[in-house]
Amino acid sequence: MENWKSIEGGVCAARGFAAGGIHVGVKSHNPEKKDIALIVSDKPCAAAAVYTTNAVKAAHIHVDRAHLANGIARAAFINSGNANACAPNGEQHAEAICAAVARAVGCDAEDVICAATGVIGQEINEQVITAGIPALYASLSATAEGSDACANAIMTTDTVKKELAIETVIGGRTVRIGGVTKGSGMIHPNMGTLLCFVTTDCAISPAMIRQALLETVKVSFNRISVDGDTSTNDTFCVMANGLAGNAEITEKGPDYDAFVAALKAVCIPLAIKMASDGEGAKHLITCEVTGAKSEQSAETLAKAVISSTLTKAAIFGADANWGRVLCAMGYSGEQFDPDKVDVSFASAAGEIAVCLRGRGLAFDEDLAKRILTEHDIVIKIAMGEGEGACVCWGCDITYEYIKINGDYRT
Amino acid sequence: MENWKSIEGGVCAARGFAAGGIHVGVKSHNPEKKDIALIVSDKPCAAAAVYTTNAVKAAHIHVDRAHLANGIARAAFINSGNANACAPNGEQHAEAICAAVARAVGCDAEDVICAATGVIGQEINEQVITAGIPALYASLSATAEGSDACANAIMTTDTVKKELAIETVIGGRTVRIGGVTKGSGMIHPNMGTLLCFVTTDCAISPAMIRQALLETVKVSFNRISVDGDTSTNDTFCVMANGLAGNAEITEKGPDYDAFVAALKAVCIPLAIKMASDGEGAKHLITCEVTGAKSEQSAETLAKAVISSTLTKAAIFGADANWGRVLCAMGYSGEQFDPDKVDVSFASAAGEIAVCLRGRGLAFDEDLAKRILTEHDIVIKIAMGEGEGACVCWGCDITYEYIKINGDYRT
Repeated sequence: MENWKSIEGGVCAARGFAAGGIHVGVKSHNPEKKDIALIVSDKPCAAAAVYTTNAVKAAHIHVDRAHLANGIARAAFINSGNANACAPNGEQHAEAICAAVARAVGCDAEDVICAATGVIGQEINEQVITAGIPALYASLSATAEGSDACANAIMTTDTVKKELAIETVIGGRTVRIGGVTKGSGMIHPNMGTLLCFVTTDCAISPAMIRQALLETVKVSFNRISVDGDTSTNDTFCVMANGLAGNAEITEKGPDYDAFVAALKAVCIPLAIKMASDGEGAKHLITCEVTGAKSEQSAETLAKAVISSTLTKAAIFGADANWGRVLCAMGYSGEQFDPDKVDVSFASAAGEIAVCLRGRGLAFDEDLAKRILTEHDIVIKIAMGEGEGACVCWGCDITYEYIKINGDYRT
Repeated sequence: MENWKSIEGGVCAARGFAAGGIHVGVKSHNPEKKDIALIVSDKPCAAAAVYTTNAVKAAHIHVDRAHLANGIARAAFINSGNANACAPNGEQHAEAICAAVARAVGCDAEDVICAATGVIGQEINEQVITAGIPALYASLSATAEGSDACANAIMTTDTVKKELAIETVIGGRTVRIGGVTKGSGMIHPNMGTLLCFVTTDCAISPAMIRQALLETVKVSFNRISVDGDTSTNDTFCVMANGLAGNAEITEKGPDYDAFVAALKAVCIPLAIKMASDGEGAKHLITCEVTGAKSEQSAETLAKAVISSTLTKAAIFGADANWGRVLCAMGYSGEQFDPDKVDVSFASAAGEIAVCLRGRGLAFDEDLAKRILTEHDIVIKIAMGEGEGACVCWGCDITYEYIKINGDYRT
């Protein structure tokens, strides 16, 4: 049984956090589009982050690594107009932005982390951002409105804002955890998300929050794919300010396990929201692999299926083309016996078996069409080889994806 | 200087080969669409083939491996309506088809190889195929018309037939090499093509033709990608009947080198034709990487660029979004210093530098648009790290690709 409940408030749900977002014109001149966001804690937080595995990294990642070396942060700043990657003077601009945030918050620049998403390769307009920071700071709110403004401000091609919060009990105290995330294209499980910021009032040491972050990213953002392109800017950060008053978690044990379970309960649904809102997507695709040799094997197979362009195109066309599912598993690099594989498609409209022990079944094409016309599609694969299981999430590829990405930069 | 010349005749250019193709209705009932093809040599050939690396393999691959164990073949049969993969009784059907071809040709079934392309997972209609083989055999021609019929009959979603032949001199004798190929979707460098059959009258031993095949596939079909999906059916086969009368090539040396160079001169352009005719493609993308640490490193980087969905979408939109090129290189797995990388785009309309030492350059957007509006686009990348170089080929991703693949099966 789950021992947490959903609550309102996103990244402001936990005690002692305020957030906000405003428009300053980093890229777009549309005043309706908020483009800078800030999350601030009343007191210093134990904090940890993971970043893209891409060898080409945005400038903010180098700055954040230095600032988080001591495991402490007060504030997180995000701009959604310019990736500040492969662009002149990136680190200097990122440092100057952190310094401007620090002046507004009244903390050290080393306690500020910053993140960016947007166009790669253009020098960031530091002036327009730093000039806007006092107004951004003034806009902060510790209510749900603050999180809402922040979640809106970090969106790029996202069509829905993505925030979530839960409440649980750890060490006898009520603990809250909330997150905001963005990401719609350039998403592939190799760290995984573009940007995700999670706040909590749980008391936990820097070392243990880092451990919890690594355990969580593995089963959430690293199990989704939109387009197979791993971004230069991916950043997932957790900040814990301890205001829940629980005994600080400093080692593994029941409290740590409860915290990791709660962190996963926030991050897995946020990851699924990202896959579902993949650029141009009309379908969320869930791939469930069971009966594999190991969990690792199941994960490799499920990721290959959700990443297959041809499988994604088949789901777009509501075509029960399960041959492409087997084909994708076949080139995943995993060894398995194709003659043991069963495949079925499921959705709210029903479930239909299409492949039994590696051979096609005669099936009702009309029912298959009805199943695949639903928004949420599940591809169930039974390997018949062991106990390994894994679920990964992706989306279909559509005309709209190509439209969005054929003319993103200009 | 190249010491060969292009000639007419495709797979019938070499002495002693006849080919043909007819419609029997394997899948489509459109009598205009030829769907079975045959290539026959007057005398037994030294022959070798490589197949998909996909763990899920079409039935014909298992049969061909057995038939080619002795390195000898007389005839190659192809159907383009049914992949005969993940379908009931696949190997029995493939053996029965080889036997029917052997009866028509008057040879052992073990000297026949067969290949298939089409829908995965449906049982192949062996009867309609074997019933058509006498008529197919009767249609064979040793002229350019024979190769033309064969090249047409192996097409699926291909929009143009792909054949090529050259003439060169080896061991003082005129040697001819010709090939037909097909492939448009489910193409990714991991063996590489769907189907390619090459014939030659060069005298060469089974061991050396196998060696030549492996050297050639590495720099031709393994350097293209259409959609990142490695097919279950990929088959590349070379047959050499020795009728040129040169001293048989049985070891490495000048004659072997001349043969490999000539084989590459056939297969590289055929591979480029496949990339250019990628499903729905509007652009051929050539990615030239120079200055890498090694050829292997250059190949990994170039393949990542031509395989990047986002780079493909940018080329579709004529958007000089070089950030996606660096991003793709960054997640390729290769280690390199992004601050040493230069990028430019080129075509018949000119060339424009867009990135110097990892930083964006101001450039003329109108000129960039004109360059990227041409059909053939070259992405030039200088790594600044060594002498390694490689060229790979791909295509853009378009609305049409998604349309074709959203409703392929039905």
